[in-house]
Amino acid sequence: MVQIVLDVGCGIGLLSILCAQAGASKVYAIDASNIAREAKHVVKANNLSDIITVLHGRVEDLQLSEKVDVIISNWMGYMLLQESMLGSVIIARDRWLKPGGLMLPSYATLYLAPVTTNKHRDITDFWRNVEGIDMSAIIPAAKTHAFQEPIVEKVSSENVLAGPCMVKYININRVGIDELESISTEFRFSFMKSASLSGFALWFDVEFNGNLLSPFPIRCRFPFSSADGVPAFGNQRQQTTNLNEALVMSTGPEDPQTHWKQTLLYYLHPKEIEKGQQIEGILTLSKNYRPARSIWIDIQYTLDGRNYFGYNTVMK
Amino acid sequence: MVQIVLDVGCGIGLLSILCAQAGASKVYAIDASNIAREAKHVVKANNLSDIITVLHGRVEDLQLSEKVDVIISNWMGYMLLQESMLGSVIIARDRWLKPGGLMLPSYATLYLAPVTTNKHRDITDFWRNVEGIDMSAIIPAAKTHAFQEPIVEKVSSENVLAGPCMVKYININRVGIDELESISTEFRFSFMKSASLSGFALWFDVEFNGNLLSPFPIRCRFPFSSADGVPAFGNQRQQTTNLNEALVMSTGPEDPQTHWKQTLLYYLHPKEIEKGQQIEGILTLSKNYRPARSIWIDIQYTLDGRNYFGYNTVMK
Repeated sequence: MVQIVLDVGCGIGLLSILCAQAGASKVYAIDASNIAREAKHVVKANNLSDIITVLHGRVEDLQLSEKVDVIISNWMGYMLLQESMLGSVIIARDRWLKPGGLMLPSYATLYLAPVTTNKHRDITDFWRNVEGIDMSAIIPAAKTHAFQEPIVEKVSSENVLAGPCMVKYININRVGIDELESISTEFRFSFMKSASLSGFALWFDVEFNGNLLSPFPIRCRFPFSSADGVPAFGNQRQQTTNLNEALVMSTGPEDPQTHWKQTLLYYLHPKEIEKGQQIEGILTLSKNYRPARSIWIDIQYTLDGRNYFGYNTVMK
Repeated sequence: MVQIVLDVGCGIGLLSILCAQAGASKVYAIDASNIAREAKHVVKANNLSDIITVLHGRVEDLQLSEKVDVIISNWMGYMLLQESMLGSVIIARDRWLKPGGLMLPSYATLYLAPVTTNKHRDITDFWRNVEGIDMSAIIPAAKTHAFQEPIVEKVSSENVLAGPCMVKYININRVGIDELESISTEFRFSFMKSASLSGFALWFDVEFNGNLLSPFPIRCRFPFSSADGVPAFGNQRQQTTNLNEALVMSTGPEDPQTHWKQTLLYYLHPKEIEKGQQIEGILTLSKNYRPARSIWIDIQYTLDGRNYFGYNTVMK
């Protein structure tokens, strides 16, 4: 079975090589950055130049001489959508994917949950005694500085105060670019325990559709990012799956750490909440153009009938 | 005894407050950045507004209404001179220090030594097997990327291949700004063991002159920077000393880690050297204006009669 694969944002070419090793007859590997030159070296050194063609340029500007059976891409950014290449993946799909062709990953889901962490207390404790001097006067500025932007950090399931809400389910086979301009979701959480509500965590999972994959086992080797600061595709863990099951890569608090960790939206001031209390609101994520490719994040919510206007921030 | 102190680059005001607590009758705390506003809050919260006057501005632009007995400043950057405020400290000294007044720190010394580390091997090993794929073709680019600029990292005394050479001894009581435009030093090392020469490490120490200090014990509490990534003057260790001895703060490989760590200048390719072999050369550090406040580093040397032109790099 001849399979033609397109790797969007190929980087150093790892996914493309895995596809070639898995039996793809032809792989087009595209990257807009200069790393494409390195990918060419790697492909050549692995004697795969007859199968893998590395193209240096933007999806929007390149031409392919044929349609492809599979589009694979590691487009996911922090909080799924940050600096993501999903727009380029969608353009590639619409231009070059054969009818019935396969998108890998096939689905992506973004989650939101309220969390409690020690971060506010750590900042307060730190500044209360610096070399024996009470620097508490710094705390408001220190918190503003620390919390003005989302923080990429690992939390664990103990930090999560309620079952997560699905912010967006993206069917990558069908999603349009316009759907991603602005995502707005209502949420409602019932707190599982009394705690100090620090803010919210966002994370995602992606699914590699198994049923479609039977003839093409590359999903079994989709590499996970490492937890140790090495760029994506360093030190990966691998996951295999039954051929008829989907493979899910999750970056949630209960999962092993990946370089995506979770994305934390912190309040300036934590709020004490009680077990059983409810919080309802709306989260909006919008494409932002200053700085370029950033995401505007807005949360408005009600806690116990009192209106908080929540806050907004920008994920750069 | 009335002591008037000037703190150049006061940041949040920690040193100024320590000076006030140590008995200074008046402290002028200057910072060019907005952090001066926070320093004002801290000073006020500690009821020291009658002693400490925080001035927001550049030394070059401000006026003091009186001369000072002591100038204290944590001006040291990575590799001592990187993004350092020493120029501002010298201007402040020439404008405002009373004859016979005290500079804290009083002396600074920059050191150079050849080192061996695992960094080249780690990079090579990493790329030789990425998910089972030989990515060695990436190694030249990966090394160029990793080693094109100095790296701030901790080495230990086991990494050091020869006794350090003094690059520059700065008497802060007398040094002129022009002396710091370009520093050039000959070095000669005799290797203590056979090893793979990875490059060179730079580090420094500063000395707080004890004899002059007898009436003014603040040197006993000059805070060290922490090793855990917290900004300077977080979590410090303290060091006390006999009143008639100088206090030395060293950031060398054999010392406890500070946020300065050491600054490593790596070769693209390590060189195998033998115990007893000698290396001689010239290190030049020059002020660089693009990017602003960067330092041009040039090393030329001879190893075993063969001329290597060494290399140059910029510390941003």
